[in-house]
Amino acid sequence: MRFTSEQRLDDGVLEREFTLGEIPGTLWTPESAAPVPLILMAHNNGLPKAQPRLVARARHSAAYGYAVAAIDAPGCGDRPCSAADEQARADLRRAMQAGEPVDEILESFVGPLVEKTVPEWRTTLDALLALPEIGGPVGYAGWTAVGIRLAVVEPRIAAAGFFAGGYVPRAQREEARRVTIPLLFLLQWDDEGNPRQRALDLFDAFGTKEKTLHANTGGHTGTPRFELDDGNRFFARHLR
Amino acid sequence: MRFTSEQRLDDGVLEREFTLGEIPGTLWTPESAAPVPLILMAHNNGLPKAQPRLVARARHSAAYGYAVAAIDAPGCGDRPCSAADEQARADLRRAMQAGEPVDEILESFVGPLVEKTVPEWRTTLDALLALPEIGGPVGYAGWTAVGIRLAVVEPRIAAAGFFAGGYVPRAQREEARRVTIPLLFLLQWDDEGNPRQRALDLFDAFGTKEKTLHANTGGHTGTPRFELDDGNRFFARHLR
Repeated sequence: MRFTSEQRLDDGVLEREFTLGEIPGTLWTPESAAPVPLILMAHNNGLPKAQPRLVARARHSAAYGYAVAAIDAPGCGDRPCSAADEQARADLRRAMQAGEPVDEILESFVGPLVEKTVPEWRTTLDALLALPEIGGPVGYAGWTAVGIRLAVVEPRIAAAGFFAGGYVPRAQREEARRVTIPLLFLLQWDDEGNPRQRALDLFDAFGTKEKTLHANTGGHTGTPRFELDDGNRFFARHLR
Repeated sequence: MRFTSEQRLDDGVLEREFTLGEIPGTLWTPESAAPVPLILMAHNNGLPKAQPRLVARARHSAAYGYAVAAIDAPGCGDRPCSAADEQARADLRRAMQAGEPVDEILESFVGPLVEKTVPEWRTTLDALLALPEIGGPVGYAGWTAVGIRLAVVEPRIAAAGFFAGGYVPRAQREEARRVTIPLLFLLQWDDEGNPRQRALDLFDAFGTKEKTLHANTGGHTGTPRFELDDGNRFFARHLR
């Protein structure tokens, strides 16, 4: 893991870019004398780690007291992207916004992306946990499909917050019952690109005994700011 | 309003019994130099104000910094109860626990109880707001049917937290779209006595733009303790 740049933000959070082999990442850490718990943060369907909404959430959680890491998935963000991937991503976005069926794109594009991304998250986790400023345990926040797979295969993930979740590849929908860590499931009630009933069905399917659903009115990007605080407190209950 | 007894609890909260005409009530107030916001707290279907789970919630919210009031509805708790009411209440409890249809009992027993209780809550509110230790604005927490009616007819109610809500008389289900104050709607996902889909439909029906659903695994009485804190913070956002 090689840090390539760093800047200290107004609230004392240190924001560092890193590379780990081919993986580009960002690490946010609070001012803290003691090692802090870690949250892995991923955007749905491989949106870039530099996307402003993810960055705002990451900085908020870091200021609260967590180390937060994000990486670009293969073919996403700062990484080389094939024309076919660009096309699939554009098709997915257009179909979701239009409320059209997206299952085919999910299975052909998002499914393989999950498969490729999860091992990279595990490699990144190994490197992050070797840093003296980061202690266990580890939480995960964001992209539901990757989170489900990580929760199933990675025993170091102790709790997870998932966002939306109406569109999840079949493989992860089937794995949901094998997820047994505490979950906070965040749903935008009027999210045109995220079918409400499918999200509720997925929440129901998780095998964990301690799962909480937070649903708020509004569209995909309308999550109220107080949910950031609720998320930080959820992790505070489980990452100690 | 006549205070008939008082005790100071370990956390500094003052717990006072009162009567207001025929209405018996309890008022919990925190140690505070300045007037504090008020939360009216009611148990579903007129369970007594002395019921331990309600008392625990009331004390918790008072220790957080709210005045909290509960009253016994007509025919409930410390008030004279007819044999017919006792029978209806027993029938309702038995049917809910057995997962049997309860709509008939709801309409014949709970519907009229809501009609009788809401004016008493408004009378109580008048008296409470005349106390120097209580300032506005006012929140409501608990029994969904009474809360819907109060939110519609009582402009002093600024925000409400509803519990369960699967079984609500038809009149209040129809009034739900007229509720426009901020809402926190609490649902136990596996509550055998509270049909999940009806609760979700009711959440969907509320006319308010700022509504939040919190759903947790477990049965009717299994609400996690952290929801008490979430409720206090919800009111903190709206009762200032």
